[in-house]
Amino acid sequence: SLLLSLSLSLSLCLSLFLSCFLSLSLCSLSLSLLKFTRLPHLAGTEQNLQLAEQIKGEWLAYGLDSVEMVPYDVLLSYPNISQPNYISIVDELGNEMFNTSLSEPVPEGYENVSDIVPPYSAFSAQGQPVGDLVYVNYGRTEDFFQLEREMGINVTGKIVIVRYGNIFRGNKVKNAMLHGASGIIMFSDPADYCAPGVQPYPDGWNLPGGGAQRGNVLNLNGAGDPLTPGYPAKEYTYRYNLEEGVGLPKIPVHPIGYHDAIQLLKNMGGDIPPNNWKGALNVSYRIGPGFTDGFSTQKVRMNIHTNNQVTRIYNVIGRLRGAVEPDRYVILGGHRDAWVFGGIDPVTGAAVVHESVRSAGKLLRKGWRPRRSIVFASWDAEEFGLLGSTEWAEENAKVLQERAVAYINADSAIEGMYTLRIDCTPSLHTLVYDITKQVSSPEEGEEGLSLYESWHKRDNWTDDRDAPRISKLGSGSDFEAYFIRLGIAAGRARYTKNRVRGALKNHSCFFISYPVYHSVYETFELVERFYDPSFRKLRAVAQVRGGLIFLLADSQLLPLDASQYAGSLTKYAHTIAQLGQKHPDALVKYGVSFDSLFSAVENFTVAARDFHERLTTLDRTDPIQIRMVNDQLMYLERAFVDPLGLPGRPFYRHVIFAPSSHNKYAGESFPGIYDALFDIEHTANPKEAWDEVRRQISIAAFTVQAAAMTLTPPA
Amino acid sequence: SLLLSLSLSLSLCLSLFLSCFLSLSLCSLSLSLLKFTRLPHLAGTEQNLQLAEQIKGEWLAYGLDSVEMVPYDVLLSYPNISQPNYISIVDELGNEMFNTSLSEPVPEGYENVSDIVPPYSAFSAQGQPVGDLVYVNYGRTEDFFQLEREMGINVTGKIVIVRYGNIFRGNKVKNAMLHGASGIIMFSDPADYCAPGVQPYPDGWNLPGGGAQRGNVLNLNGAGDPLTPGYPAKEYTYRYNLEEGVGLPKIPVHPIGYHDAIQLLKNMGGDIPPNNWKGALNVSYRIGPGFTDGFSTQKVRMNIHTNNQVTRIYNVIGRLRGAVEPDRYVILGGHRDAWVFGGIDPVTGAAVVHESVRSAGKLLRKGWRPRRSIVFASWDAEEFGLLGSTEWAEENAKVLQERAVAYINADSAIEGMYTLRIDCTPSLHTLVYDITKQVSSPEEGEEGLSLYESWHKRDNWTDDRDAPRISKLGSGSDFEAYFIRLGIAAGRARYTKNRVRGALKNHSCFFISYPVYHSVYETFELVERFYDPSFRKLRAVAQVRGGLIFLLADSQLLPLDASQYAGSLTKYAHTIAQLGQKHPDALVKYGVSFDSLFSAVENFTVAARDFHERLTTLDRTDPIQIRMVNDQLMYLERAFVDPLGLPGRPFYRHVIFAPSSHNKYAGESFPGIYDALFDIEHTANPKEAWDEVRRQISIAAFTVQAAAMTLTPPA
Repeated sequence: SLLLSLSLSLSLCLSLFLSCFLSLSLCSLSLSLLKFTRLPHLAGTEQNLQLAEQIKGEWLAYGLDSVEMVPYDVLLSYPNISQPNYISIVDELGNEMFNTSLSEPVPEGYENVSDIVPPYSAFSAQGQPVGDLVYVNYGRTEDFFQLEREMGINVTGKIVIVRYGNIFRGNKVKNAMLHGASGIIMFSDPADYCAPGVQPYPDGWNLPGGGAQRGNVLNLNGAGDPLTPGYPAKEYTYRYNLEEGVGLPKIPVHPIGYHDAIQLLKNMGGDIPPNNWKGALNVSYRIGPGFTDGFSTQKVRMNIHTNNQVTRIYNVIGRLRGAVEPDRYVILGGHRDAWVFGGIDPVTGAAVVHESVRSAGKLLRKGWRPRRSIVFASWDAEEFGLLGSTEWAEENAKVLQERAVAYINADSAIEGMYTLRIDCTPSLHTLVYDITKQVSSPEEGEEGLSLYESWHKRDNWTDDRDAPRISKLGSGSDFEAYFIRLGIAAGRARYTKNRVRGALKNHSCFFISYPVYHSVYETFELVERFYDPSFRKLRAVAQVRGGLIFLLADSQLLPLDASQYAGSLTKYAHTIAQLGQKHPDALVKYGVSFDSLFSAVENFTVAARDFHERLTTLDRTDPIQIRMVNDQLMYLERAFVDPLGLPGRPFYRHVIFAPSSHNKYAGESFPGIYDALFDIEHTANPKEAWDEVRRQISIAAFTVQAAAMTLTPPA
Repeated sequence: SLLLSLSLSLSLCLSLFLSCFLSLSLCSLSLSLLKFTRLPHLAGTEQNLQLAEQIKGEWLAYGLDSVEMVPYDVLLSYPNISQPNYISIVDELGNEMFNTSLSEPVPEGYENVSDIVPPYSAFSAQGQPVGDLVYVNYGRTEDFFQLEREMGINVTGKIVIVRYGNIFRGNKVKNAMLHGASGIIMFSDPADYCAPGVQPYPDGWNLPGGGAQRGNVLNLNGAGDPLTPGYPAKEYTYRYNLEEGVGLPKIPVHPIGYHDAIQLLKNMGGDIPPNNWKGALNVSYRIGPGFTDGFSTQKVRMNIHTNNQVTRIYNVIGRLRGAVEPDRYVILGGHRDAWVFGGIDPVTGAAVVHESVRSAGKLLRKGWRPRRSIVFASWDAEEFGLLGSTEWAEENAKVLQERAVAYINADSAIEGMYTLRIDCTPSLHTLVYDITKQVSSPEEGEEGLSLYESWHKRDNWTDDRDAPRISKLGSGSDFEAYFIRLGIAAGRARYTKNRVRGALKNHSCFFISYPVYHSVYETFELVERFYDPSFRKLRAVAQVRGGLIFLLADSQLLPLDASQYAGSLTKYAHTIAQLGQKHPDALVKYGVSFDSLFSAVENFTVAARDFHERLTTLDRTDPIQIRMVNDQLMYLERAFVDPLGLPGRPFYRHVIFAPSSHNKYAGESFPGIYDALFDIEHTANPKEAWDEVRRQISIAAFTVQAAAMTLTPPA
């Protein structure tokens, strides 16, 4: 009956939606992609400002009610033009025996493009540390644990070298710092960045040996601009000193490709590592420290001169005023800044936002206006730590807290060719299913199938239910401040690769990007030739994102489903309790129980069920009645926010979801409890550690209970 | 035109209101006062639980839709029954030469009452420190500064003795701890607790020499229950250890009356203090340390055995469902627990709540039901740190943040006999003036005058405008969590003494209580014989409080005035800038400017003016239009909340108002800036100190600007 009632309100809206969005022109999507990928659009550059102005002009022409450029002055980081970054092997006299390359070979057709920033780790510390290399696999928490506890190797004063993949690079850098390394080198291993049987770009979509992954190496934990945590980086805003800045690494960091990696790895000494530490290069992946006999006097020197610099960035914010409830906002936001051309990241996303604006404009001209307001955002400086989106969230926090219905993210629409991937808050599950049932499969040979059916057969939520899998939101894109800090219902959609195949290779494909990610080889041609030659996948993703925005903005009753949230909470509670129950003796000894959490989840489940039952008899002609229940739905996500934040992470305030402390890309449920339980068997003070588990269970139980209270009839 | 539009909506409501509230029976008010003051109602006792049950029953009988008892398990503090607290003068062998009294002489008629708790300082540390006395006047920050900087006396290891008054006693204790004292004794000096020409109780309303002021000596800074900061103290809630508890003093503390004080002070040695350190006792008020020649081998020993103990308390929560917007709450709350009989504190307040419920019930029976919901609260354990009200705010924080329109406090209705005193948020100023114009003066010989006129002629807001003075909210009663933590518009009303006469005596009468405050002499007879024999003052205060609740709940447009807020912000900005401009050289040297704050206040002023101008053309027949502007008004106060809190005070989150760090009773405007500027000429690191001033100005400017944004037209 819940599904039925949602479907009833959906069907009216959908007909209008379909008439516009389903006819979304493949041609105009691909033209936007082409148009926005001609030049590099690095945050803080003139090119990216010009693109912002172009977008502003076009959005106004499409018919939005207002479009504004919103500037902030944030800390960015660029290589030093006169002193390039590189890594050397040096002999005992300090002579450079080998140097890594200073740039990537530029793809054909782009030779005359200037301002291609060479591969670098944004916000790296400056410095020229010299030392022995230690190889630490992916640089994950568990890799460093294994290195220290099982292999007995201490990296203090050493330079660590790790392969990219599996976790966010900033977490690798943090781990290296925590363990005392003097520098960290990250390389792309073919095991992770070359699919079998696929050619390197431009003949295929694999990473060439000269390509390397750019990216920031911050540990911001949601702070936004490192110098203005909690407040928008305006002219008048107080800025911390660089030394006090949030999340800036204290050691040099640099990324290299696998051709250079071979040179650094091939003569390494020390033990042979376990098999799951071995990549696909023709080297033995010895752990070190340092080089093997005959090369043992050689050291590695990093030469890093990257500069931090406060720089002006620009968001473009377009608004379409709601006809009935202009003070309710549905937000579609994606970033505009790219490391180089942004062929996939972000332009497959930015093109979707652009076409959504164009579609909305067409409908406006036909006399339509949505019930609620829609905000379209082109964020700047996402690549430097989600800065544009976070600063805007900070500047508008009070208004957003009161009025934002949902945030839909529009970063890269494609990270693979296999099927749909949705990460969203549980209350959006039902809407996602309903929409994907109305969208056609983009796969060849699936004419007549819906996207839902195509997705379902490729990625079933096997254990739990017979439906396509939907994932938790982690971080790594611009929804973070909206969802994790402000508690606004959020979701993202993209085309992804086959997770099962990834899993077989011993890492989750969810947290390993496509091979040429953040390299110069992310071009328009990459998409056109390999990922989506028909642009049908791009269109399908656009339809899902646009459909979410459209239905959230125009349905009389908000299409948010509290019962799905109840189901997810139940699952998460069992998962976290199972983790605790690995220590049955300690649970007894320290009086730790999950009962209060289960009891709160049960209360929430009843409250959600009763809430949706009451909706079926709601008087749909009474505007205040409608507004009241919509407010309850809108504020449900807000109820999971704890203003005190998670321990040590004041800007991660969602008690149910947070980026994992060990991998920013991964979403963790009940993160407070999870972190308290993590590595608990190795803690020095078990009484204190289990007290923290008890405290976190109590906070989680309280929060779920408080959220349940928001769903009961008011007064 | 603003006043006009408010008045239009008011006049309709007021006629209904007047018909009920203006006829408020003097008899029933005085009967409630009598009924609730027969027995002691200390928080955590059986008597106070029984009173809660009685109140619940009567509220249900009056006709509220629901009434519930809401329990919490909070940390309370009681004297040890088998080991009484007292202070001794001891000789060199430790023999007790003099002991302070163990209890107050019980007033006539109450001799057979059991369970009168003796005077004590709740949450005092246990201990028996022995040492020399040092007299530190009122124990204020400036008193300790003067003692150390000008008189060169260090109190480390000494027992300090201070007089009550001027600031919250917890601040005195904190100051003593900060300066290293091993214990602190607080006494009531006749200079502060005996008005000239007035007899001690029972012949007048002055404090007898055997009377002493009970009270908690916590420094909670809004945390509520010391063991569960931030979360409601439910069965399942994680509790910190006592050592980790918030705000618990680490030294023994004890209150005494002036008969006992004479014995401790009369033989003190050391210098004669400045005149403004001298009270009205027939002693020289020497500073010490220790006793004078001939007594110098004598020491003072404190004997304190008070126990902290987790105890169940009960709020009574009554609800009246709104007819149109049941999800909007107007709250009238006051505490029920008393140190002894509560003759003034809290029963003059509790009686007002009780009669408000009775009046609402009468109207309900006539078919009336307010537009919005009204919540009536009888809080427990206010005397132990605002515990009942804060725990309920914590448990209901999410719902209140979304739905609470205003909180009106109903603690003691009387603290003097002179005129009305209002402390409230600026947006309530206009409503307070409108209501007091409709209420009759309670003063004899002022028949035909309004309360407004009576109040105006006694306490004009001279410098600023020709209207009765309204003050800032500080703390010291149950509105704190609602206003300072959650950002809900709040106010309080009471009858007060003549501030001018207080000021002449070198302390602000606002922060010195009535003489018998928190003593056993706070009886029904105290009010009936001296403070308000006709009960007309009590009724006038009840009419103001009830009028606020009634009009906030029933007006179509919320009677909140953003322009008054703008006016207050302008005034506060000038005040704080003037404080900064006492250091013109430093402002230049460290680049400190108040321009951003003035600019934000200017933007707010324009936004508020435009907002109220738009209200004049609002379509009053469109329910969503009405709801939208009401939401803007309701959420205006919320916009001043910074989730990061003030430095070191995470539960004080209102950027415009906070209790002073030096006196919890006083309201400070722009408290972040104020604290950064405080004592800045004595700072060890001026660069860092002025950086903090700059940071706080930036936060204030941002917050005011963000609040302005909430007033602009949505979308």
